[in-house]
Order: sequence, then structure tokens, then C-alpha cells
Amino acid sequence: MDRRKFVKTAAVSAGAAALTACDSGDSSASNSSKGPSILGKKRELKLVTTWPKNLPGLGMAPERVSKNVEEATDGRIKIKVFAAGELVGALDSFDAVSTGAADMYHGAEYYWQGKSQAFNFFTAVPFGLTANEHMAWIYYGGGQELWDQLSATFNVKAFMAGNTGVQMGGWFRNEINSLEDLKGLRIRMPGLGGEVMRRVGAAAVTLPGGEIFTSLQSGNIDATEWVGPWNDLAMGFYQVAKYYYWPGFHEPGSALALGINLDLWNDLSTSEKRIIQDACAAENSRNLAEFNRFNTASLRTLAEEHGVKLRKMPPAILAEIAKVSEQVVKEAGDGDELSQKIYQGFLQARTDGAAWSEISEEGFWAARRLPIQAG
Amino acid sequence: MDRRKFVKTAAVSAGAAALTACDSGDSSASNSSKGPSILGKKRELKLVTTWPKNLPGLGMAPERVSKNVEEATDGRIKIKVFAAGELVGALDSFDAVSTGAADMYHGAEYYWQGKSQAFNFFTAVPFGLTANEHMAWIYYGGGQELWDQLSATFNVKAFMAGNTGVQMGGWFRNEINSLEDLKGLRIRMPGLGGEVMRRVGAAAVTLPGGEIFTSLQSGNIDATEWVGPWNDLAMGFYQVAKYYYWPGFHEPGSALALGINLDLWNDLSTSEKRIIQDACAAENSRNLAEFNRFNTASLRTLAEEHGVKLRKMPPAILAEIAKVSEQVVKEAGDGDELSQKIYQGFLQARTDGAAWSEISEEGFWAARRLPIQAG
Repeated sequence: MDRRKFVKTAAVSAGAAALTACDSGDSSASNSSKGPSILGKKRELKLVTTWPKNLPGLGMAPERVSKNVEEATDGRIKIKVFAAGELVGALDSFDAVSTGAADMYHGAEYYWQGKSQAFNFFTAVPFGLTANEHMAWIYYGGGQELWDQLSATFNVKAFMAGNTGVQMGGWFRNEINSLEDLKGLRIRMPGLGGEVMRRVGAAAVTLPGGEIFTSLQSGNIDATEWVGPWNDLAMGFYQVAKYYYWPGFHEPGSALALGINLDLWNDLSTSEKRIIQDACAAENSRNLAEFNRFNTASLRTLAEEHGVKLRKMPPAILAEIAKVSEQVVKEAGDGDELSQKIYQGFLQARTDGAAWSEISEEGFWAARRLPIQAG
Repeated sequence: MDRRKFVKTAAVSAGAAALTACDSGDSSASNSSKGPSILGKKRELKLVTTWPKNLPGLGMAPERVSKNVEEATDGRIKIKVFAAGELVGALDSFDAVSTGAADMYHGAEYYWQGKSQAFNFFTAVPFGLTANEHMAWIYYGGGQELWDQLSATFNVKAFMAGNTGVQMGGWFRNEINSLEDLKGLRIRMPGLGGEVMRRVGAAAVTLPGGEIFTSLQSGNIDATEWVGPWNDLAMGFYQVAKYYYWPGFHEPGSALALGINLDLWNDLSTSEKRIIQDACAAENSRNLAEFNRFNTASLRTLAEEHGVKLRKMPPAILAEIAKVSEQVVKEAGDGDELSQKIYQGFLQARTDGAAWSEISEEGFWAARRLPIQAG
């Protein structure tokens, strides 16, 4: 995923004054009480997102959560969803909710890494956790409690609300056969993944989503990551780069988050809290299922209709990238005491996940391939 | 999992008369209207389960869903959960809900395979779907629609509400090194998995859960499957069988289900339907996360504290079991037109899942092992 795109498309630059001005022009007061009733307050909430309008997968999650909360509350809670730039810029979403200028955000926590590097661990880090491992950590491994502490520092309460699953390694104009091929390679890869690529000699750059295709076409860049087959097919990269590499080491299961202004959260009734929490937890299943379903269909289209060549990144290269990733991720966890606790919690979840995956999914899939291949 | 255990522990044998008698002794009428209000009916519902009281993992799912629905509706829907045998026997749960003697059940759909073999596909079949693949099929691959058709035949509407993840292959008193070692092996394995074992020469038996330990101890059986490390640790099998085999080919991701009497479902308001659906979908994330979290912790305890020897089933044996499984599963899908459609939908979901898992989770996990092993 790419945060620069959303910066660029943001129509409103951040700042409390600008946000207040926006709000005052809105006829329905945010988080307003329409008078007491036995049902609790009527609420009209503003949800700002880090996604462009109608973006499949990522953008559908907040739409679905909002619709479901409204339906579950018989319309007592109405949530208006704003695409990136409609109310505030994508990267200003967190501040807007923190200050109460907006009520909720939907996005990826690593977009707030400027506030604390520890936010990276609540989305994805290179060679980190898969979706199911992440959920095991957050729901039952102490992850939510650590996340709550971090979010509360900023007057926010956040929940998981969606997951992309494992992403792809990216699109390359030429094959990558050795570490030498990465030296000087101009690859678009933002965040910690980009930092890893820089340390192995690549010239990692960040580019807004709308500029990637033409940059790849013109040869200004040699490679790019995006999300996975479903989203990548829509971007048309297959037209200008034929090699599609796996696995997506940099984002093995990106968790999406719904953040709520903490004062608002504390003001919600028990039933409102439950409805919102369940809508978010339900979205974890649905969104991941949606990505898995459409990634596999899109992958077939890419290979069969567009002649895309799937390539596994050579193990020797992955081993080196993995080694460098450990250091980059360690540095992201090397902040204050809370950051270090989060990093340690992440490490434990990863060790546990690796031990279990080897004899569960991995062991099973290897065995299952036999009859499928036999037809 | 084992259905025989629940048959044995069932206090009430099935039969509509007996069920009606039970109901008439209950002071709160099932699915009763306490008079109209702007909030809709007050409902007091009976949820029968196929699980013993307080069973970890499986048994927690209906407790959590019920508590969450009650909380989300501010107590307008109260759901009383009955363990297997408290109101009806485990395997009578489906009939109880079908006839309206109970309002809901929580269990595994393959318990109703006596009514239609096609129900197997909505829990798990040998060499079938993992949890995430199953969700992709049910939510976005047409699975729910096929399931609805099958359930409606019996006046039931069902949703996924939990998943065990990949189970383990089972506990063996002796090592298994060749197909020859399976000949005559007395292994406790119910359902389609047991049928597969019989066809490769094992003497597969079914035993109630409470008899497995002593049978294994006395040598009456040589091996048994149960669920996974979390549940198996509690059963104490490690005391009498040291070899713990993976992968669990027979149940690669068992989906749990919440079924609702169809007349009741149709009578629910839009908000009630949404609240129940979201509680079920949320339980998919939570229950699977819980299994993954505690399986891995229990696996460590088994290996480090109890000297359990983890063993991978040799590939040559898995290949043969896989071949036989294809035939057994095909026969389960070889019923009426709807059953055949369900089987075809399952096959497509499996083909899609296999293509995607190979380059996503599998590819990623193999790469990630490098830095973790390097320490």
C-alpha cells in the first residue's frame, strides 16, 4: 500500500482550523445528542479514511462496517464515510480523530509511524506476522492491551477491522537472479520494506499510486510493489512489467484498523460498544475472505489472459533480505518502554506462529498438493 | 472431534414428544413475544449445542456469541445455552431447531451427515479446505447460497461461527514408517477420515471421548485423533502415547456453525439479523485466533514438559491416504443435484485456495524461517 498517493489526493491540508471550518459547514453536528431516549443518544458520526473512494478491498471495509453498525442500531448510529481528501488528507485522519474533529478513522496504523515507530507492528512489518498470527496476538496474546496503551496516548481507541492477507513481492521489468540484480534497482516500495531494500543496495523510492504505471512504463522505475493480484490487476502493471514476484516479504498480512476518538468511545453505551466491536471483528473475517477469494481469481486472469510470469524470489536473495529486515524491524521497536514491550510481544507471537504454522497449514498444504496435482 | 461422545452423554433421547415435554416445563416460552414495542419483540431463545459443558475452544464459541448478542441488543434478546444432553442429545440438536423445539444450535455441520452427506462440506472433509479458504468460499465464493439451499430443506438458516484451524493427525503408541504399519492399526477416527483409514487397511473405530484415554492406555486401541494441542493436552493422551503426528489431513480447518430455526430467522427484524450475523462472523476471527494462540502454547508444553515426540507423517503414506481421500470425498458429494453443486463449489474453492496459498502464506513462511532459525 502507499500513503503518498493519499497525501497527493488529499484536498484539504491538515490543521485544526481547517478541520473546524469543514465541520461547521456540515448541517449535522458530529457526535451530537438528539436528546435522551431509552435507546441512548442518536449519533451522527464522521469516519475519515486513508483510502480513495471506491477502492476495492481496503476501501470496502469501512463502508461495510458503517453500514452494519447503522443497521444493527436501527439507524440510531449513522456513520458517514469520507474518502481520503474529502474531509481531511489521508495522513491527517489520525490527528482528526485524536482531536475530535472527526469521530473515527479507517486505515493502516503504520501510516502514523511518524508519531511512534511502534505503530508499524499493528499493521505489518517485513518478515512479520500473517493475518491469522496477527489476530492470535491481538485477540488472545496481549496485543490489544499494548495497542490500547499506545493509542490512548493520542486519545484514540483502535480495533482490527480487516486484513489484506499476504501481499505480493511486486512487479519487475526484468528477472532478479542474484543480489547483484538489486544493486541500484529503482523500486517503488514505501516504509520499512523500502528501508530494507535500500540497505541491500536498491534505490527504493516512494511514488503516489497514480504515477506508478507511467513511471514503470517510461523506465523511470524498474519495479514496484502494490498490494496483491486483485488490486494489482486493476492498476494494469502487467502491461509494462511481466515478472510478478512472490512472496511479499514486506507485508505478510496487513491489518487494517478502525480508530475511535477515546472520549466518544468512553461515552458509548455497552450495547453501542459491542455492536461496533463485533462489526470490526466480523470485518476481519469478511475482508480477509474477500482478498483471498479475489486474489486467486485475479491471479488466474493475470497468468492466463495477460501472460504474466510468476517468479519466486531466489532463496539466497530472500535470506539476505530477511537478515537485513531483522535489523530494520528491531530498530522500529527500539523506542520508549512501551515500544519495546510491543516489539517483544510481536517477537513472541512470531515465534509461536512459526512453530504452529510449520506443522499445521504448511504441513497440510504440502500434503494436499499431491492429489490435486494428480488431477 | 467426536460425535459419539455426545451421543453417550446425551441425557435426553430424541423425539418431538420428549422435546415438547421439556419445553412445557420451562417457565419462559421459547421465542416468545413479550408484546410489541418500538424495539421489537423481547425474545428468550434456547440454543442447544453439540459440546460438553465448558469445553474450551469449541464450547466457548456459542457462549461468546450468545453473550454478545444479548449485550448488543441491550438484553432484548436473551439466549440460554444448553450443553449436549441438557435439553436434547448432541446429535438431536439439528432436529430440535428444525422443528422449533429449540431456537438455535451450535455445532459442526458434519454431525448431520445422516440427513445429507453434503453437510460434510460445511465443516471439513479429508484433504479439504483450511479455515481461510473455507471463509473465502462461504462469504464470497457462493458457498453461503448453496448452504442456505441445503439448510432451508430442513427449515434452518446457518452461519459460520468459529473454526478450529488445522487439526493434528493424532496420537500413536508406535511410530508409523510405512503403509504396512497402518494395516490393522486400531485407530479411533470418526467420519470420513475414519473411512479413509479403513480403506488403507486400518481398523478405524469410533469411541466416546471419555473412553479414549483408557483404551489407549490398555492397548485396546493403538492410536487416536482428537482436535489439536490445546484440547489434546487437556485429555492427557501424552501420558500413554508419545508420538504426535501431523498434519491433520482429515480436518484441515473445521468450521463451526450456528443454525437458527428458519421461521424464527424470518421473523427477526433487520437489526436483529445484523447483530446475530455480525456476532457469528466476529466469532470466526476470535475462535480461530483463540485456537491458534493456545495450540501453539500447548504444543510447547507437550514437547518441552511432557517429552512428546512430534512426527511428520511420511510423504509416501500421505500420498496414498490423499488418493483414497479423493474417492471418499467424491462419494460424499455424489448425492442429489444440490449435493453435486456443493461438491463442485468445494472443488473450485480448493483449486483456487491451493494456487494462492502456494505463493502467499507457504512462500512467505518458508522465507521467514531463515531469520528466525538464525536467531
